Amino acid sequence: MQIAIPIFPRLTALDAIGPYEVLQRLPDSELIFVGHELGNIRTDNGFLGLAVDAVFEDVPSPDVVVFPGGVGTRPLMKDERVLTWLRQAHEATRFTTSVCTGALVLGAAGLLEGLEATTHWGAYDILERTGAVPVATRVVEQLDRRIITAAGVSSGIDMALRLAELLVDSTAAQAMQLMIEYDPRPPFDAGSVPKADAAVMARAMEYSEKRH
Amino acid sequence: MQIAIPIFPRLTALDAIGPYEVLQRLPDSELIFVGHELGNIRTDNGFLGLAVDAVFEDVPSPDVVVFPGGVGTRPLMKDERVLTWLRQAHEATRFTTSVCTGALVLGAAGLLEGLEATTHWGAYDILERTGAVPVATRVVEQLDRRIITAAGVSSGIDMALRLAELLVDSTAAQAMQLMIEYDPRPPFDAGSVPKADAAVMARAMEYSEKRH
Repeated sequence: MQIAIPIFPRLTALDAIGPYEVLQRLPDSELIFVGHELGNIRTDNGFLGLAVDAVFEDVPSPDVVVFPGGVGTRPLMKDERVLTWLRQAHEATRFTTSVCTGALVLGAAGLLEGLEATTHWGAYDILERTGAVPVATRVVEQLDRRIITAAGVSSGIDMALRLAELLVDSTAAQAMQLMIEYDPRPPFDAGSVPKADAAVMARAMEYSEKRH
Repeated sequence: MQIAIPIFPRLTALDAIGPYEVLQRLPDSELIFVGHELGNIRTDNGFLGLAVDAVFEDVPSPDVVVFPGGVGTRPLMKDERVLTWLRQAHEATRFTTSVCTGALVLGAAGLLEGLEATTHWGAYDILERTGAVPVATRVVEQLDRRIITAAGVSSGIDMALRLAELLVDSTAAQAMQLMIEYDPRPPFDAGSVPKADAAVMARAMEYSEKRH
């Protein structure tokens, strides 16, 4: 089972690595980090380098695509090489999925036209302009289209567990959950817009502006 | 604020990338992935390459250390170069932390002698042999020693949010939680040993044996 994870300059690392950590543990899975050219790309802040091990065209028919997000998705929305690869890959995938603003690339490729889908809470408006119907749900399944979109960053872990169930079975998915000891105990309860107070939202905006 | 994350062959990527994704968003933070030599290392399954951007000796006095786990920690428990770096760094850190079996390296360096600490549930016995007192708690704080240990893999995200609170304040930590949309909704409830049934545990063992 071949699972392709596109990586590109200024991606958000956890979008990719959360699902990777679940799916790499499935038996007979082969995960491939694909990109524009072989070598390293740097994540959104530049602090981390990840290796591209294959170019897009080398992986034309993956069983699963997991498209991560990050500010680096914006140029990809007009990158015909990536959009063509994604459209063609999707014809044969078992599931084409996204995490965070990876959904913007699925949308730009025309895969979300008229469909409910999700993305990071800060990008609903951009997602809507691709023809999708943004919803504030953590994981949105469109199983008849073989498409699953997940919300911001950490939601990819929840999505990947569901994907493990769909690809293998529920016991496999729970075994993955146990192996990564995913029994979350966040010390706060501010992980979505309705739960965050005004001071938290203001601080999130302040820090985001400093980064970009 | 300099945050060092050691990476090494056969680490578990999410152990490192969960905390990285939280801490890189703090203002004025500089995250550095350190290792034995510059270049790429491969994670536990070989599917992912991460870039080492500095050697240990180039980062002698980080404010924070986050030591990730993975099967690759076992040789590090006897690696005097790593243990010496870690002991010396710890003298000046604000916090020395570990995720998953990263605790085994802290233990081997003598930092956990007689202290309650945690690690992946599959490694309590090895942790105990380093002189620590293993406990099945998700995040164990020894603030008078400036040491925090987290349980398996995904627990590093919870730990990093607490660390953000200690390093900056509670609003900052909640802003990080909001930015990574960490409002977890795992589709199952099997993320710790007491919650996993016998079939799930058997499957976890089966898949682990296939991997190593």
